[in-house]
Amino acid sequence: MKNTILVVGSVALDSVQTIHGSTNRSLGGSAVHFSLSASQFTPVKVVGVVGEDFPVPFRRFLKRRNICLEGMQVLPGKTFHWKGKYDRDFKNAITIATELNVFQHFQPRLNGSHSECGVLFLANIDPDLQRGVLEQMPKARLVACDTMNYWITLKKKSLLTLLKKVDLLFVNEEEARQLTGEYNLIKSARLIMRMGPSAIVVKRGDSGAMLFYGGEVFSIPAHPIEKVVDPTGAGDTFAGGFMGYLAAAPDWKNYDVLRRAMSYGVVMSSFSVEDFSVKRVGRLSKPEISARYNKYVKALAIK
Amino acid sequence: MKNTILVVGSVALDSVQTIHGSTNRSLGGSAVHFSLSASQFTPVKVVGVVGEDFPVPFRRFLKRRNICLEGMQVLPGKTFHWKGKYDRDFKNAITIATELNVFQHFQPRLNGSHSECGVLFLANIDPDLQRGVLEQMPKARLVACDTMNYWITLKKKSLLTLLKKVDLLFVNEEEARQLTGEYNLIKSARLIMRMGPSAIVVKRGDSGAMLFYGGEVFSIPAHPIEKVVDPTGAGDTFAGGFMGYLAAAPDWKNYDVLRRAMSYGVVMSSFSVEDFSVKRVGRLSKPEISARYNKYVKALAIK
Repeated sequence: MKNTILVVGSVALDSVQTIHGSTNRSLGGSAVHFSLSASQFTPVKVVGVVGEDFPVPFRRFLKRRNICLEGMQVLPGKTFHWKGKYDRDFKNAITIATELNVFQHFQPRLNGSHSECGVLFLANIDPDLQRGVLEQMPKARLVACDTMNYWITLKKKSLLTLLKKVDLLFVNEEEARQLTGEYNLIKSARLIMRMGPSAIVVKRGDSGAMLFYGGEVFSIPAHPIEKVVDPTGAGDTFAGGFMGYLAAAPDWKNYDVLRRAMSYGVVMSSFSVEDFSVKRVGRLSKPEISARYNKYVKALAIK
Repeated sequence: MKNTILVVGSVALDSVQTIHGSTNRSLGGSAVHFSLSASQFTPVKVVGVVGEDFPVPFRRFLKRRNICLEGMQVLPGKTFHWKGKYDRDFKNAITIATELNVFQHFQPRLNGSHSECGVLFLANIDPDLQRGVLEQMPKARLVACDTMNYWITLKKKSLLTLLKKVDLLFVNEEEARQLTGEYNLIKSARLIMRMGPSAIVVKRGDSGAMLFYGGEVFSIPAHPIEKVVDPTGAGDTFAGGFMGYLAAAPDWKNYDVLRRAMSYGVVMSSFSVEDFSVKRVGRLSKPEISARYNKYVKALAIK
């Protein structure tokens, strides 16, 4: 169980509209995007909640991808539903409706096998819930966490308490700024590291990603995509590739390992935007991943 | 003269204000930033115009950096003066005043030695003037050109005529979109290549840069800088490093050479933002450049 990731986060139905079409209640949520990406590298267990309307085929689909759903509670009511759209430039998600439904009362419940997992990923949920889960995972050798502007504004104190016990934090540039008040990303990341995490990953969308670890500052570009269909879940897919690779590696604190993990994160997220929902990542084969990874890494090896 | 670059562009006095201080009529202009960067790699000749107020120390300073100023006319009146400021996030330059002065009547004049140059860089000026210079350079083996939204709006026809004869175009994302109406950068670059240039370089500020050449799409990150003091001229400094390296290379159409040139562009522009005006690039030593280049390239070589 040393290499198994436990992920706690949202399981959702997404209705998304972009210039290339739309979906109606397709499979989504941070825990789903993360799991489908991470499970390409290592076993994954999900802790989440769905309503009675959650389609059986979605459940089967996740299980076929070796994702353990024992921790996915079914509550009376409807599954979390997000409805949104993107403009031509795909810069910002425009929310049309957020129906939290059963997710509003989500109380993560862990069983014995969950607390044996070596790696924990706390997707973007209430930091008090994130902390509650973390406290049930004393054996976790790597704890990573995501958050969002909403929690930084409303529950900063809870978040800061949590961060003391977290190894690795995922943020975007705006969240880093919001957490620290510092505009320069390097300075901002250093300030966050003083709050607890020994590594910071900054997700920058089509500008790539940055890793701060020890004194190192590592920046890599996105893998350019000619037809972006739906960017929903790209950040969680990035985190899944990154964490999946790290969890499977013998020592995550190795800088070479971390740089490879960043590259897998970029590669997995580049697949995710190529189709709606989890269509692309859900049907990916290992040779497809390797081929794109090798191409990406080769281009960056400047001779 | 095969490796000598002729650059045509603005020579200016800049008054810039940022959170780290301000300058008053410091040395600036596209041709200046480009030349100081490119002259680290290859000989450079400037064609430009200044007023009678252009300080003698600035002229001496450029000459000491092996930049030929024979083509820099002095006209009665004042030198082009730009006054602007940047916000904390350094995203956008806010223009306070643009005094074109003698630059308004700029008519590039080439002498015999100019037309012998093997490489031409047409910095961002009126595309009709750019074309006038290009027509006097029949021996140029590499012609590159920069432009801006202003010319795309006001002189698109002239620009399109020019592009037919240009090997390499520098643009930013917005300009690429404006030229083609296409939002996806890969598709947009392919459309621009049909207009003439065989290579497109997209400058993306702190998101790095992209190169389109043949079927290749190459993306590299910026070199992260902890204290950005003044981003004025960073794009021209990038172009200078890129073109300087290409001009000195035996074959610019080689993909490895182009990728190295991109990296030198990134490295030179990372220096330029570290101080006001040309203070940092103007006093750079070759070992400083090599050290940062090696560090940058080494980080990107993912093992």
